[in-house]
Amino acid sequence: MSQIRHALTIKREDDFAKWYQEVISAADLAEESGVRGCMVIKPWGYGIWERIQRLMDDRIKAAGVQNCYFPLFIPLANFTREAEHVEGFAKEMAVVTHHRLISDGKGGLIPDPAAKLEEPLVVRPTSETIIGDAMARWIQSWRDLPLLTNQWANVVRWEMRTRMFLRTSEFLWQEGHTAHENRDEALAETHRALEMYRACAEDDLALPVIAGEKPENERFPGAVETWSIEAMMQDGKALQAGTSHYLGTNFAHAAGIQFQDREGAQQFCHTTSWGVSTRLIGGVIMTHGDDDGLRVPPAIAPQQIVIIPMLREAPEDAELLAYCEGVRAALAGQSALGERVRVILDKKPGKAAAKRWDWVRKGAPVIIEVGPRDMAEGKLAVLRRDQLWNAENGKPAFSYPAHADFVAGAGALLETIQTALYEEARTRRDANIRRDIVTLDALADHFENSGKYPGWVEVEWAKPTDAALDKIVETLKIHKLTIRNVPRASAEASGQCIFTGNRAVERIIVARAY
Amino acid sequence: MSQIRHALTIKREDDFAKWYQEVISAADLAEESGVRGCMVIKPWGYGIWERIQRLMDDRIKAAGVQNCYFPLFIPLANFTREAEHVEGFAKEMAVVTHHRLISDGKGGLIPDPAAKLEEPLVVRPTSETIIGDAMARWIQSWRDLPLLTNQWANVVRWEMRTRMFLRTSEFLWQEGHTAHENRDEALAETHRALEMYRACAEDDLALPVIAGEKPENERFPGAVETWSIEAMMQDGKALQAGTSHYLGTNFAHAAGIQFQDREGAQQFCHTTSWGVSTRLIGGVIMTHGDDDGLRVPPAIAPQQIVIIPMLREAPEDAELLAYCEGVRAALAGQSALGERVRVILDKKPGKAAAKRWDWVRKGAPVIIEVGPRDMAEGKLAVLRRDQLWNAENGKPAFSYPAHADFVAGAGALLETIQTALYEEARTRRDANIRRDIVTLDALADHFENSGKYPGWVEVEWAKPTDAALDKIVETLKIHKLTIRNVPRASAEASGQCIFTGNRAVERIIVARAY
Repeated sequence: MSQIRHALTIKREDDFAKWYQEVISAADLAEESGVRGCMVIKPWGYGIWERIQRLMDDRIKAAGVQNCYFPLFIPLANFTREAEHVEGFAKEMAVVTHHRLISDGKGGLIPDPAAKLEEPLVVRPTSETIIGDAMARWIQSWRDLPLLTNQWANVVRWEMRTRMFLRTSEFLWQEGHTAHENRDEALAETHRALEMYRACAEDDLALPVIAGEKPENERFPGAVETWSIEAMMQDGKALQAGTSHYLGTNFAHAAGIQFQDREGAQQFCHTTSWGVSTRLIGGVIMTHGDDDGLRVPPAIAPQQIVIIPMLREAPEDAELLAYCEGVRAALAGQSALGERVRVILDKKPGKAAAKRWDWVRKGAPVIIEVGPRDMAEGKLAVLRRDQLWNAENGKPAFSYPAHADFVAGAGALLETIQTALYEEARTRRDANIRRDIVTLDALADHFENSGKYPGWVEVEWAKPTDAALDKIVETLKIHKLTIRNVPRASAEASGQCIFTGNRAVERIIVARAY
Repeated sequence: MSQIRHALTIKREDDFAKWYQEVISAADLAEESGVRGCMVIKPWGYGIWERIQRLMDDRIKAAGVQNCYFPLFIPLANFTREAEHVEGFAKEMAVVTHHRLISDGKGGLIPDPAAKLEEPLVVRPTSETIIGDAMARWIQSWRDLPLLTNQWANVVRWEMRTRMFLRTSEFLWQEGHTAHENRDEALAETHRALEMYRACAEDDLALPVIAGEKPENERFPGAVETWSIEAMMQDGKALQAGTSHYLGTNFAHAAGIQFQDREGAQQFCHTTSWGVSTRLIGGVIMTHGDDDGLRVPPAIAPQQIVIIPMLREAPEDAELLAYCEGVRAALAGQSALGERVRVILDKKPGKAAAKRWDWVRKGAPVIIEVGPRDMAEGKLAVLRRDQLWNAENGKPAFSYPAHADFVAGAGALLETIQTALYEEARTRRDANIRRDIVTLDALADHFENSGKYPGWVEVEWAKPTDAALDKIVETLKIHKLTIRNVPRASAEASGQCIFTGNRAVERIIVARAY
C-alpha cells in the first residue's frame, strides 16, 4: 500500500481546528473580511448556501409558510419590553446611535453629534419582537390563524470569539415565526419545523442528526419548549444544526398578539419560531470534509460534475473543447435527485492537474478529465470525490467508462454518492455513541481518557429542574460537557438517573459541542 | 354604458400619490413597520420580489457572474478614503457605535459606554469599498480577470422623506461588481448589465424602459459613465429603474486593485458596478396598477391563476373542492413563459365574492370562480385581471370556457396577458413623449400648461459640461425637471441645443422624476 499525498497540509487527526480553517481556505468557501467578526462568503461557499436555501425554501413553502421581510433595525424599546428575552442574548448587540457622518476637520469622518438618534436602534439579533408587533397588527380573528411567516435575512450578534460559519457576528439565516389558536396547533408546527430540518439535514445535506428536546437550561429565552437537531462532527463534538421553539403565549403577551376565538372571546396566540443558518455549512465541512478538502453532497453542490479538458494551447484544443461541450450538454440533460444535473466545463486557463486538485479541494462530487486520447477512444477519465484514492497504488482512483455509459448513469451515480456520504457519516456517528455508561465517574472517565474524539454518550436521567439542574450543568461543565437533547426516538428509560440516583424518566445525549 | 364601481376608493387621476399608497395597502404588498423609514414587505409583495430575484438571478448567473456575500458593516476608514464617493451619499448613513446594551438602572436599556467601538462601523449604503478590498486580495494576475461578482443584500441610506418601495431607509437590492483588464472589457460589461436590466424590465416586469447614459451631473460619484433604464409611470414621471456604472480605475486606485498584465507589468483594474432594487416593485405598481388595485405581470406573479370555489359551508362543498383540486392540478401541469404555471386553490374561509375582490386588488392575472352549476356544466367562470370590466354593463367581464379548453389554453393566455400589459404601457409611454419641442420657453410651457401628467420631452443638446451644465440643471430645477438620460436608441441630433443654441450633438430625455 503506497503512501497517499493528500491535498491539504493539515490532517483531521493532527489538528481538527486548524484543518477546519484550511478546508475553508483551500475549498475557497470564505475568508476574513477585515471587519471584526464578519466574513466574506466566496462563490463556492455562497453557492452551497444558495442550494441549501433553495431546498429548504421549497420545504418551507410546501408547508404553506409565506416569506416576508421585516426591518433590520429594532427599536430599543422592544428589547426593554422583553427583559427575559434580552437576558438570553447577553445584550451583545450592534447599536446604531447616529444617522450621519461629518468631517472631523482633519481629513477624517465622525458620527455627527447633531444627528444622534433619539432612541438608538438595535441591529436585529433575531426578529421575534418586531415580527410580534406585525402579528399584533395582522391578527384579529381565528380566521387569520394560523399565521405562518418566514424570512431569509442577515442577523448580528456581537461575538467575542468567532469562527467562520460556526460563530460570526453577522450571519445569514431563515427565521420562521408562526401564530396559532391553541397549544396543540403551535406544538404541531414546532414539530413540523423540526421534522423539516431533520429531513433537509439528512436528505439534502447528508448530515445524520438526532432530533430531540433541549433541556430546560438550554431553552431559547422565553420559550416553553426548545427542540433541536444535533449532528456529530468528525471530532466527536456536537453541532446544534437547527432549532424549533414553542413559545407558548409569552411573546404574544409581550407584543399583544390577540385574536377573537370561535366563541367570540379574546385570546392570546400561541407562537413558535424556528431557524437554521449558515452554520449548517460548518456542519457540512466538519462532517464530510477529509484530508483532501471538502466533499460536497451532490444535492447541495453548486456544480455536481466538473469537466476538465486537457488543453495544450494548440490548434487541436478547439476539437477537444467542442467534444467536451457535447459531454457537458449531454450531462446537463440528465436528472439527479429530482433536478437537472449541474455540470460545468472548466475552460479557465491553467494546467489540467492543477485544476483537478482545485476541484478536489472544493469537493465537487464528480470530476471528469478529457484528453485527446480519451476523445479518440470515446472514453472519460472519471474521479469520484468520495472515493478519491486507489489505496493500492496511492494514486487518484480514476475509472474510464465509455462516454455514453457514463452519461446514462450520471444521475444514478450522483444519487449513489449522496447516499454514500450520508451512510458514511451515520455509521461513524452511530459507532461513536456510547449507551452503556451508568455512573458519573464512568462518564467523566470516558470523556477524559478515551482518546481525542470521545463522541457522545446517551445516559438516563430523572429530568431534574431549577437548582438541581443547575448543579448538573456545573458538574458537566468541568468536563466541558453539555446536555444536547432528549432524542425523540430514544428507548424508554428503565434505570437510575446518572446524576441523582433517582428513577430515570428519559434519555439524554451528553457531549462536547460547538 | 354603466357606471363601474372600482375596488379602490382613490382614482389615479384624482390623487396619484394617495392612489399609490392605497394600492400598496389594498394589494397587501407592504406596510410601515414602526421603525423610521423601514417597511415590512408582506407575503404578496415579497413574493413579487422573489420572482424578480429568481428571474434576474438566472440572467446574472447565465452571464457567468458569481454570487458572494460581503459584510453588512463597513469600517469608517473606507469612507474616509473615498472622499468623492462619500460626497454623493450625502453622508446620511446608519452608524454603529456600540456593541452592547446595559440596564439604565430605571428599567430601560442604554448603549454600554464601556462597549464603545474604537472605530464606528457604517451599515452599508452600497458595497464598492468593501468589495474593492476583497478584489485587491483576490486579483493578482490577468488570469484572475474578469472577476464577476454579485450580491443580493439589504442596504441602508438614511432618508428624510420616505415612500414605500421607492425610497426607504433600508431596501433590498442586488449589486454587481466586476473587475477587468481594460477599459473596453469593463465598458462591455457595463453595457451587458444595462441590456440585462432592459430585458428583465421589459420581458419579465412588462416595464417598457429607455436605456441610455446619464448626464455628467447624474453620475454615480466616482463613476466615469453611469447608464440607466428609465420607465414612465402613469403620472408621466420617470422612474430610474436600474443603473450600470463604468468606474474606470477610480475605485481600483482607492482600494489598490492591481494585476500583473500579459506583459508582466502592474496595472490597475477597470471596474464596474450595477444594481436594481425593491424600487422595481414601485415601478410595477405605478405602471400596471389601475383603479381596482395592482395588476401583476404573469412572469412575476407569485400566483398566476387563483381558483375560488363558491363554498356554502354544506356537505356538497367536498365534491366542489375535489373538482377544483382537479382543475388546480391540471393547470399546475401546464407551462407558461418557460415555467410551470403557478396556480393556487384558495380554500380560506370567507365569501367567494369578497375573496375575488381581494385577488383583484392584489392583481392576480387570472381569477377563476367555480360554483356547483359550473361544475355540473364542466365550465369555469374566468376573469382576466387586465380586462376586468364589461364596459357595457359595468360588471366584471367573466367568460365561461369549458374546463378542458381553458386548461389547454392557460399557458397561452398568461403569455397574452404578459404581452398585453407591456403593450399597454409601451403605447402609453410612447404617446407621452414629445420630440417636437425646440425652445426652452416651449419646454417650460409644456410642463407648466399641458395638464397634470405632461410626460417626457426628448430634446437636442450640445452636451455642455461643468458650470454650463450646472446652469442648465438649475434652470430645469425651476420646473422640477431633470435630465433622465441620453437614449441609446435615439435618432441623431441635427439641430440646435435647446439650452445653448450651439450645434446639438445628442438627444436627451427631460422629465419630472421619482
